[in-house]
Amino acid sequence: MDQRLSLITLGVADLARARTFYEQGLGWTPRQALPEVVFYQLPGLGLALFPAEELARDVGEPLAAPGGAITLALNGRSRDEVDAVFAQAVAAGARPVKAPGAVFWGGYSGYFADPDGHLWEVAHNPNCEITPRGETLFAAP
Amino acid sequence: MDQRLSLITLGVADLARARTFYEQGLGWTPRQALPEVVFYQLPGLGLALFPAEELARDVGEPLAAPGGAITLALNGRSRDEVDAVFAQAVAAGARPVKAPGAVFWGGYSGYFADPDGHLWEVAHNPNCEITPRGETLFAAP
Repeated sequence: MDQRLSLITLGVADLARARTFYEQGLGWTPRQALPEVVFYQLPGLGLALFPAEELARDVGEPLAAPGGAITLALNGRSRDEVDAVFAQAVAAGARPVKAPGAVFWGGYSGYFADPDGHLWEVAHNPNCEITPRGETLFAAP
Repeated sequence: MDQRLSLITLGVADLARARTFYEQGLGWTPRQALPEVVFYQLPGLGLALFPAEELARDVGEPLAAPGGAITLALNGRSRDEVDAVFAQAVAAGARPVKAPGAVFWGGYSGYFADPDGHLWEVAHNPNCEITPRGETLFAAP
């Protein structure tokens, strides 16, 4: 299996509410918006918003609630950018889970939950490179 | 907030078991393997395995079980590749959730759960381009 990822799908309770958060709130632009699913192109992969009920039907079994043992992270280029993104998300209706602060691994990090409870970390990691195209490259040891 | 994603962190019950699945089972190579966390570089972003207990401590609140309303997808270049990846994952100990088959949107898709219950879709989407670098590009409408 190739070491890559094509799409992350977030199950949402209300597609219109989720779109408002990601588009009006965070400033994202959809690549494709259908009545039942919306795709955002990110560098290297896509992110989809899809009603959780439909996602469960697609998977073929009931799904647990969002906020499970998985987090998505956006790494900023500075601590100031982390603070700004966190403030923007909270202003857009995200639940502040952990205010950004210095963390044990030498970085700076906070968490918010989107309107469906999906957990986002906003972090500055001095050992990561963010390319002009927006790719995040992790340092070798 | 930039329209991009830096890292996906999967909370795991047993880091050694999870590494065995992703490395011996699926053939992935870590960029950095520390005793408490392992990073894989994917095209454009990283994927980390991190003990779920530590992840909850980092988030600052209890997390729900894996298998929540979020899925990760690997798009193959053909239906045969989807079948091969699904078979490889199941042979490596994944739980088969939905055998690959044709789906309503014109593609071909199946689901497996990794040893911690994280849901992976394996799909062929004829409207997606997979670049030689392994990036997945979604078609505009």
